[in-house]
Amino acid sequence: MSATRSLKAVFFDIDDTLFSTTVFAEKARRAAIEAMIAHGLKGSREDLIRELNEVVAEFTSNYEHHLDKLLLRLPPEALDGHNPAILVAAGIVAYHETKFRELRVYDDVHEVLRQLGRTPLILGIISHGWTVKQAEKIVRLKITEFIDKRAIFISDQIGISKPNPKLYRKACEALGVDPREAMYVGDNPKNDLEPAKALGMVSVWMRRSGRHHLEPGMSQPDYQIKNFHELRDLLVRDFGVKV
Amino acid sequence: MSATRSLKAVFFDIDDTLFSTTVFAEKARRAAIEAMIAHGLKGSREDLIRELNEVVAEFTSNYEHHLDKLLLRLPPEALDGHNPAILVAAGIVAYHETKFRELRVYDDVHEVLRQLGRTPLILGIISHGWTVKQAEKIVRLKITEFIDKRAIFISDQIGISKPNPKLYRKACEALGVDPREAMYVGDNPKNDLEPAKALGMVSVWMRRSGRHHLEPGMSQPDYQIKNFHELRDLLVRDFGVKV
Repeated sequence: MSATRSLKAVFFDIDDTLFSTTVFAEKARRAAIEAMIAHGLKGSREDLIRELNEVVAEFTSNYEHHLDKLLLRLPPEALDGHNPAILVAAGIVAYHETKFRELRVYDDVHEVLRQLGRTPLILGIISHGWTVKQAEKIVRLKITEFIDKRAIFISDQIGISKPNPKLYRKACEALGVDPREAMYVGDNPKNDLEPAKALGMVSVWMRRSGRHHLEPGMSQPDYQIKNFHELRDLLVRDFGVKV
Repeated sequence: MSATRSLKAVFFDIDDTLFSTTVFAEKARRAAIEAMIAHGLKGSREDLIRELNEVVAEFTSNYEHHLDKLLLRLPPEALDGHNPAILVAAGIVAYHETKFRELRVYDDVHEVLRQLGRTPLILGIISHGWTVKQAEKIVRLKITEFIDKRAIFISDQIGISKPNPKLYRKACEALGVDPREAMYVGDNPKNDLEPAKALGMVSVWMRRSGRHHLEPGMSQPDYQIKNFHELRDLLVRDFGVKV
């Protein structure tokens, strides 16, 4: 039997690691635009979606009033005499209904989290973003039963932002875990893996979304995986985790 | 054939006129508390609901952070080591899911609005509250197809609050309707009916919720009704509306 490295905690990123943020955002924005058109907004669906994507790029995805900004950018006749508040509300309702229906983990996530949840490993979240939005994702993804209640760390709530390694150190300290006995699983080499590796954590690059690439000068992640089954297999093989 | 008074527009209140705000809010708050308990909050359901109702009474129903305030008021051990953001998010998600499922007009509303929508009457909304919240209710109640797109007036969006009669005058002016040829249907004599009557509008007291009473010194509303069938009947009988 080969020697295995000891591991006490595995932390996960949320976006594009536990679910496809990219696919979800695309669906939700499309639903919003379609509802606004159904309520009387004039314009072609594709033009409006392109304009909305520009708004999101300019004002960041955490901004609250994308749809209001969209209407401000359109020629007045696009509103066709409708109250803008009703058009915006129609978009918001459709966006929320998409969240309600579609915000789900990737197919293999629950199965593997359930298996890992039965081991002595502490399972946690280290996430970048606004507290309310990230917490809502955690609830909607229905993963709280597998995650240690003390192990949810959101940058906005802690006051330290990715890629500052302090965020990761704080999470390990709060749980009394040496970073060298902790693993981080994320999709973004710069924000997720570089800081984790800098502290000595095991870095696992979840490449399912394929959005990010290694840039020159970045260190090689310890592992590259495409799904949660591969995560389970490497935990069993290299860290002696018994599932 | 008796002479009938001429009528060009009928404006509606939203809350407790088109749907039961009281019953809905009670259901939604209960769902929020139950979800917070399911996610680990300690306390009896009834105690927590009572505390939440106190928060709403103190901070008004339009405040955004009722659930955060609820947690601040509880002894720290009620959180049992959980991240408060997760407990709040669980409550918010349950609240929104209740909105998604339960925010519906009273049974007779669509039928009668559909009938009135086929007449020359202008159907509109004059509502007190926050723009985003009231607009969301209008969309979720699925009444926009019956309402004139130019005839939605929300106090926050206009800068005039109930019971200021200017709000009602502004609505009539925007549509070019003499207030004496307009009707207002609402549940609150003080906020809805007194100002409408002061302008010469026909005032109709919707008494379905039974929440409000005539106080000494208030003028008698022109009509008192319990549902939308009675509204249709009085429009046919006294105003010559042909449905």
